[in-house]
Amino acid sequence: MKLAHLSWPEVAAISRETVVLVPTGSLEQHGPHLPLFTDSLLVTRVAEEVEARCSDEVLLTPTLWLGASGHHLAFPGTLSASFSGYEEALTQVILSLKRHGFHRFFVLNGHGGNTELNGIALRKLKEADPSLTLGHSGYFAFIGELVGKTLTGPLKEIRHACEAEASLMLHLFPELVRQEKLRDDGLRPSGDLRGMVHLFDEITEQGSYGFATLATAEKGKILYDAAVAGCVEQMRALAAGYTLDSIVKDPT
Amino acid sequence: MKLAHLSWPEVAAISRETVVLVPTGSLEQHGPHLPLFTDSLLVTRVAEEVEARCSDEVLLTPTLWLGASGHHLAFPGTLSASFSGYEEALTQVILSLKRHGFHRFFVLNGHGGNTELNGIALRKLKEADPSLTLGHSGYFAFIGELVGKTLTGPLKEIRHACEAEASLMLHLFPELVRQEKLRDDGLRPSGDLRGMVHLFDEITEQGSYGFATLATAEKGKILYDAAVAGCVEQMRALAAGYTLDSIVKDPT
Amino acid sequence: MKLAHLSWPEVAAISRETVVLVPTGSLEQHGPHLPLFTDSLLVTRVAEEVEARCSDEVLLTPTLWLGASGHHLAFPGTLSASFSGYEEALTQVILSLKRHGFHRFFVLNGHGGNTELNGIALRKLKEADPSLTLGHSGYFAFIGELVGKTLTGPLKEIRHACEAEASLMLHLFPELVRQEKLRDDGLRPSGDLRGMVHLFDEITEQGSYGFATLATAEKGKILYDAAVAGCVEQMRALAAGYTLDSIVKDPT
Amino acid sequence: MKLAHLSWPEVAAISRETVVLVPTGSLEQHGPHLPLFTDSLLVTRVAEEVEARCSDEVLLTPTLWLGASGHHLAFPGTLSASFSGYEEALTQVILSLKRHGFHRFFVLNGHGGNTELNGIALRKLKEADPSLTLGHSGYFAFIGELVGKTLTGPLKEIRHACEAEASLMLHLFPELVRQEKLRDDGLRPSGDLRGMVHLFDEITEQGSYGFATLATAEKGKILYDAAVAGCVEQMRALAAGYTLDSIVKDPT
Amino acid sequence: MKLAHLSWPEVAAISRETVVLVPTGSLEQHGPHLPLFTDSLLVTRVAEEVEARCSDEVLLTPTLWLGASGHHLAFPGTLSASFSGYEEALTQVILSLKRHGFHRFFVLNGHGGNTELNGIALRKLKEADPSLTLGHSGYFAFIGELVGKTLTGPLKEIRHACEAEASLMLHLFPELVRQEKLRDDGLRPSGDLRGMVHLFDEITEQGSYGFATLATAEKGKILYDAAVAGCVEQMRALAAGYTLDSIVKDPT
Amino acid sequence: MKLAHLSWPEVAAISRETVVLVPTGSLEQHGPHLPLFTDSLLVTRVAEEVEARCSDEVLLTPTLWLGASGHHLAFPGTLSASFSGYEEALTQVILSLKRHGFHRFFVLNGHGGNTELNGIALRKLKEADPSLTLGHSGYFAFIGELVGKTLTGPLKEIRHACEAEASLMLHLFPELVRQEKLRDDGLRPSGDLRGMVHLFDEITEQGSYGFATLATAEKGKILYDAAVAGCVEQMRALAAGYTLDSIVKDPT
Repeated sequence: MKLAHLSWPEVAAISRETVVLVPTGSLEQHGPHLPLFTDSLLVTRVAEEVEARCSDEVLLTPTLWLGASGHHLAFPGTLSASFSGYEEALTQVILSLKRHGFHRFFVLNGHGGNTELNGIALRKLKEADPSLTLGHSGYFAFIGELVGKTLTGPLKEIRHACEAEASLMLHLFPELVRQEKLRDDGLRPSGDLRGMVHLFDEITEQGSYGFATLATAEKGKILYDAAVAGCVEQMRALAAGYTLDSIVKDPT
Repeated sequence: MKLAHLSWPEVAAISRETVVLVPTGSLEQHGPHLPLFTDSLLVTRVAEEVEARCSDEVLLTPTLWLGASGHHLAFPGTLSASFSGYEEALTQVILSLKRHGFHRFFVLNGHGGNTELNGIALRKLKEADPSLTLGHSGYFAFIGELVGKTLTGPLKEIRHACEAEASLMLHLFPELVRQEKLRDDGLRPSGDLRGMVHLFDEITEQGSYGFATLATAEKGKILYDAAVAGCVEQMRALAAGYTLDSIVKDPT
Repeated sequence: MKLAHLSWPEVAAISRETVVLVPTGSLEQHGPHLPLFTDSLLVTRVAEEVEARCSDEVLLTPTLWLGASGHHLAFPGTLSASFSGYEEALTQVILSLKRHGFHRFFVLNGHGGNTELNGIALRKLKEADPSLTLGHSGYFAFIGELVGKTLTGPLKEIRHACEAEASLMLHLFPELVRQEKLRDDGLRPSGDLRGMVHLFDEITEQGSYGFATLATAEKGKILYDAAVAGCVEQMRALAAGYTLDSIVKDPT
Repeated sequence: MKLAHLSWPEVAAISRETVVLVPTGSLEQHGPHLPLFTDSLLVTRVAEEVEARCSDEVLLTPTLWLGASGHHLAFPGTLSASFSGYEEALTQVILSLKRHGFHRFFVLNGHGGNTELNGIALRKLKEADPSLTLGHSGYFAFIGELVGKTLTGPLKEIRHACEAEASLMLHLFPELVRQEKLRDDGLRPSGDLRGMVHLFDEITEQGSYGFATLATAEKGKILYDAAVAGCVEQMRALAAGYTLDSIVKDPT
Repeated sequence: MKLAHLSWPEVAAISRETVVLVPTGSLEQHGPHLPLFTDSLLVTRVAEEVEARCSDEVLLTPTLWLGASGHHLAFPGTLSASFSGYEEALTQVILSLKRHGFHRFFVLNGHGGNTELNGIALRKLKEADPSLTLGHSGYFAFIGELVGKTLTGPLKEIRHACEAEASLMLHLFPELVRQEKLRDDGLRPSGDLRGMVHLFDEITEQGSYGFATLATAEKGKILYDAAVAGCVEQMRALAAGYTLDSIVKDPT
Repeated sequence: MKLAHLSWPEVAAISRETVVLVPTGSLEQHGPHLPLFTDSLLVTRVAEEVEARCSDEVLLTPTLWLGASGHHLAFPGTLSASFSGYEEALTQVILSLKRHGFHRFFVLNGHGGNTELNGIALRKLKEADPSLTLGHSGYFAFIGELVGKTLTGPLKEIRHACEAEASLMLHLFPELVRQEKLRDDGLRPSGDLRGMVHLFDEITEQGSYGFATLATAEKGKILYDAAVAGCVEQMRALAAGYTLDSIVKDPT
């Protein structure tokens, strides 16, 4: 069910065991080859497909498209929420629906810069009301091992406007890909440094990180189908309820 | 130009005299006959049409759809930003583009509950940087006297899920109108009280305020065309620049 | 009753149906002819007269004189609260008295720059506790059509240190009016622009907006009497309680 | 000079070496015998007398009458700012005048509950701009040893609605003293406990702390004159400028 | 009992009448002769000794060592919390233990710059929950008259890296005192100014205030023993509970 | 160099290329077998050893021991900072030293609950000042593959009061381990759910997660040595400076 299109009496009639699915994206530079809205377009499409497949169990909100993108602000056109503003928006969406009796929420993220804030927002909500069921993940995390198997470039993970994201865009929104501008880009620290914090104008030349020239619509379809399938499975598990079992063989 | 679909080098190439158009909406109850997303759908459609007509002079951002709707929260499905969260989101959109050199901004509002906050956000931005050109208005304000002439019910203004909004929806999104549920609703203080603050569950029976049973697609078209025309005119005036002239005949 | 002059056991004895009247003003430039405290002086005088006329029904607090005047800060002597600080002060006055059992509050405003914040403060309070009766208005709004009929200059409304405000000051505080400095002032956008946000050093030459040279004490008396009468009427209606009635002829 | 009564061009003409005097008070219970506005009335009267005596060297603002009075909120009628709201108001008054070029500020306090916040507000301002000259003190601190000599009751200091405050009120505002209600009150911890934090409903029976039955207008006059004289001396020293000299006899 | 070394089931078993002792310090410049951690080292040592002497009645937390030291930031190495950050840390320590059922708290302070904030933090907590028993004091305040009797220099009080603090360090941490760098320092306003707010780079030449060259370990021992003894007495009084008695001889 | 023990002139003399090392810990329940201070004790010991080994290149601050531990608050004794308070403390430590000219900072974390906040704090600092070199990591992350090889239980990672943490404590602080209370504990969601947010009283029976009964001092030594060695390497690389190199073979 798409929340945006329902009327309030229709929402009043929905089961409160329904899983609320909240997509989070960004409007930020994606190199010379992809549009600023890439993250929001992709996560929205995945979320809509998930909703279509398990419509009875999922209540889909519109995408929170204004992400935490301060590390991309050196590139024109990027919009960024403040950290606290982003967190506040997500929190209020959940609190609003909690007031209406919903208690299962899953945040489906399309932008790495939101991940830490999604975690913190949900931790605060959980600490304030332990009865809530809360989870969050990037849609890309549902793809799992298929990422490494599908990508042919030297980078076996999803980064930014990379082989994977460009492939997804070629599959889903080919008209928005500047094919002639696809480029490989990315800088990394010499040595093996752990946990350094960088801006994207430091670690790229033109904003993308990865091997976008290798992108194809076929790879995009594989990744997309896997993301949707994984997320559908999670939604169904959440809607069914789940228990917590001991990791100890014979706990006393 | 639609910001969402541009790449960053394309934004880099835009004239900084361009007027940035930021639509603001809501996701809140609109009675039993209209969808929760009514405000966001309408303001987005108006803004897109404005952008289509003066594409060279306007840079359109996605709609900030999470509005200040706390007065509707008694009705299931309504989402509301916090007051400060809403203001923060709008502020950061403008500050992001100001960083990229844009200095003319117009906020086109689709939800009355946002109006005061739009004013405060822009005042803060203006006080912090007087060189900015900033304005805001409801799209409905551009319709002007036509509202009173077009509506046939006793309420000669746009309220909430009323004759006007239902007409606009019938014109633009007829598939989302629950025709059989259209109803008249609304309560007002006895006597002639000024400035009382009410929640919508106090001043309506089922969430709408006005005479929605009188709505027609024809009225909707008249209102829509007027809103678009008025907003286009304002965009062009802003893009051309404007001066401030004395109201005194012979100022010394 | 004037809260400031009561002792706590006297407050303890007051009916909790009493309407608390909270005046809000400013200390900001009012051109070369009026003192900085103009708004606070006027709203306080109106409020005190209202209290004098319906003393049993009204509990008057001191005036919150530090207003939101950032748009006047280019002129020496202007003091401005921060937006949040202003809102916080008003909110805490109401919350303090709510703790003591009062539940009817009316904010009487003397400074346009406070209007949006008064609205937001009351909306937050109302959303947090729907049982409160809350309202706000400028004292000038109670004057109604008499403004246009009384003013003889081309501007038929109350702006800033204008024909109306200077007249009120000549009526109530003639010793504080610099008669020889009265001047007409004000700039407006060419064309018919809607909703532009300006600072007062942009839209005036010396800080006032309107035709102050036309001010007279007689006009001031007319405006003052009307403001007081209108506000008295509102206080009595609030103290009597009021109902909300359907706008629909035969609601079902 | 009284800021409230000046026009902006008059403020523009003042020497920026002038000392800005900011009185801070409260509206809080003062037992059954004194009005809620006692602190604000007293500090305002002292400040106005100081301004009258050294008018050229002092620019007096209106009194910030909404104090930090949460520890009195159990008594009806008490209004309290939030801690942060109080601090914000004081800060913005100083920042507004700093913007206009003033750099010497003295906060004259009439309510003990404000003291810590006055200190913190000024420390923040000083850390942000070390060029400012900032100071704060209770008006009562200027009375010095005369307090102990003047009071005849067992409590040789100024507390709350006590012998000293009631005497000051009898001297300055006798019509606001409920003579027949004057009472002695106050509770203290058994033993010799240091630094315990209490509410006034814990440490008094009816809100006052001290021996108000011993109050006389004569004592009030002595205390008042001393407070004014001490504060005048400080204002003149600040207006003259002051140096910092080594406490070491022969510093190297 | 030292909280840090307990396990949670051990804390679960403690009497909730136990007094929680929270030491607060700083990491800030202490002249050329003392280490940055002086305040934290001293208050921690006092607190540990107090805990050792009345272990059954006291639950000691680790020292909040990041103090409010903005007035020392001109000297390299000084760390300062923000004012609000410091207050928040102290508040959360107390709220955490309040959640576990403890209700008696005493904050033992080692840094003058924290005093106002300790007061404000405790006032907020007390206003929010009047059932709490809360107190705070500098450890130095427990020394009382012995300070004046012990110090031989012209300054008969504890200031900063002065005769007293240097003596305490010589007694407790002699290896951290740069003996050859001990120096006398300090500047004060000419005249007799009250309440002026200064930074330490204004009122010292090299960061210390007082006559450190007169420091001896013997003086340090006297001061230390007195501080510990006074604090132990307070802890025992708090653990025993205390009553509030009228200051009026025959209260009615 | 240990910042706490230096005097300010000594800090003034340090090279500004020095890497500032900031350890972050917690005071939270660690099951029935480990003390509340476990995280802070471990990360402090690692950091001190790292400082000892590359003392010229590292400036060590005291440990920020008050962590974000809200998910453990159901267990008595746990203290938790607020999320914003924790972030503020870390931020101010870095800003203080940045004011003194240092620009390389590494946060060494000992508590998983701090990780997201460390990331966000550093991102904000980096966005505000791109010239800073900033990084953060858990000390445990430096152990790398050795974790899996060293642990003999079924859980091949470091969780909470688990085989790894108990081993580290047995190696470094054996007197604080309640050997007879060591226990295996932990619950996990049925199915393969991704990203669910839980409190520790939901996912454990008595607070620990993992197989602590398998802990030995020998394993602890292996893990500790690896953590120290990895962190030393990182400190040296940071102190030497590092470059960013293209991931593209022949970038154009």
